[in-house]
Amino acid sequence: MKRFDLSVYLVTDRPLCGGRALIDVVAEAAAGGVTLVQLREKEAGTREFVELARAVKKALAPLGVPLLVNDRLDVALACGADGVHVGQSDMHPSDARAILGPGAIIGLSVETPELARAARDFPVDYLGAGPVFPTATKADAAPVLGLSGLGEVVGLAGRPVVGIGGIGPANAMEVLRAGAHGVAVVSALCAAFSPREAARELLQLVRAARGVQD
Amino acid sequence: MKRFDLSVYLVTDRPLCGGRALIDVVAEAAAGGVTLVQLREKEAGTREFVELARAVKKALAPLGVPLLVNDRLDVALACGADGVHVGQSDMHPSDARAILGPGAIIGLSVETPELARAARDFPVDYLGAGPVFPTATKADAAPVLGLSGLGEVVGLAGRPVVGIGGIGPANAMEVLRAGAHGVAVVSALCAAFSPREAARELLQLVRAARGVQD
Repeated sequence: MKRFDLSVYLVTDRPLCGGRALIDVVAEAAAGGVTLVQLREKEAGTREFVELARAVKKALAPLGVPLLVNDRLDVALACGADGVHVGQSDMHPSDARAILGPGAIIGLSVETPELARAARDFPVDYLGAGPVFPTATKADAAPVLGLSGLGEVVGLAGRPVVGIGGIGPANAMEVLRAGAHGVAVVSALCAAFSPREAARELLQLVRAARGVQD
Repeated sequence: MKRFDLSVYLVTDRPLCGGRALIDVVAEAAAGGVTLVQLREKEAGTREFVELARAVKKALAPLGVPLLVNDRLDVALACGADGVHVGQSDMHPSDARAILGPGAIIGLSVETPELARAARDFPVDYLGAGPVFPTATKADAAPVLGLSGLGEVVGLAGRPVVGIGGIGPANAMEVLRAGAHGVAVVSALCAAFSPREAARELLQLVRAARGVQD
C-alpha cells in the first residue's frame, strides 16, 4: 500500500534558499516535520539534477519522508524517488503511471475545477490545486484559484488535494478548512530563517486545523 | 542483437526546418536514406516533446530507421524510442543503461580524445565526436576537434564513432576517411531545400568514401 502524507509538503526552489545549499534546507525542513518533498529544478542539466536528487533522497530516507521529482521521470528513476509530480504540460499521468508502475506516487497540478473534473479518471494519487493565493514564486502562475475554488476542486477530485500558492503560517489553517489535506509551500520553507522551525509551525497549524475540522 | 547504422545520422533542430513541420523533414530525410535519427529538443515541454517523439517514431518505424532521443530518457521511454544520446552533462551513460536495459542504443558525445579515453568502460554503443568542423548550429559548442582529433577519438573509442559538427556534402568523405563510421548532420538535412535529396547525396558520399577506404 502506497503511503504518503500531504500535511506539510515542501516544493523546492534553489534560488529562494539564498546562499544555503538546497540539501541543507530540505534536511532542516524534514527534521522539523515536512511530510513530503517535491524536488523542482527548472534550470539544472540532467546529470546535475540526478546528483542533487540522489543527495536529497539519501537525506530523506532515514526520516521516512518520500521524495517526488517535478516533471522528470528520468531523474525520478535514476535517483530512486518515490514518485513524480506532473503539471498539465508535463508528461500525461497515464504515461507516467505506465512507466513508473502502480507503486509510484503520482501527483498532478490542477489550476481550475474543470481540470480537476477532467482528471477524475487519471491514475494519480493526489491533486495539487492552486495557486490558492497570489504568489511571486512561480512566474507563469495561473490566475488565483482562491479558497472557494480550492473547495470546488476538493469536491470534484475524488482523491486527496494539497493546496499550493501563497500559503504560509498566516493562512495554512484556512486551506485545511477549505477541504485540502495539506499545504504545499515553497517560500514559506525555502526562504525561512529556520526551515526547521517553519516546518514545525506549519505542521502544528495543519494539525490544529484538522482537530477543529474533525 | 542491437543493430544500428551510423552512416547518415540526422540530429533534429526545429528552428532550422524553417516553416516546415519537423515530422515532414524527418520523414523526407528518412525516405532519402537517413540511417539513424536523434530527436533533439531543448525548449519543448515534456508533454509536447513526448507527442512529437511519438509522431516521429511512428513515421520512422515502417522505414526501419531507429529513433534516439537526446538527453531525455523519460521521453524515450514514453515514445518507445530505440535509445538515447547523452552529452557530458546529461545523465551518466551507466545510469542510462541501468534504466533502459541492454537492448537500448546509447550514444555519448565526446568533445576531446581525453573524453573518448574516459568513456572506454562506459556502457555505450557509439561515440559522437565533434565538433569536427566549425558550426553555428550549437551555441555552446566546444572548440573544433578537427579531422586529426576525430582520428584520435576513433583510435581510442573501442566502438563506432560518428562525426558531428559542420558536416555536409563538401566534407563528408573526409570524415569517413578520418575513420568515422558515419556523419551526423543537423543543418545539412534540416535546412536543406530537399531533405530527401540531401540525405540521398550524403548516403552516396558515405558509401563512396567507404568503398575507397575498404
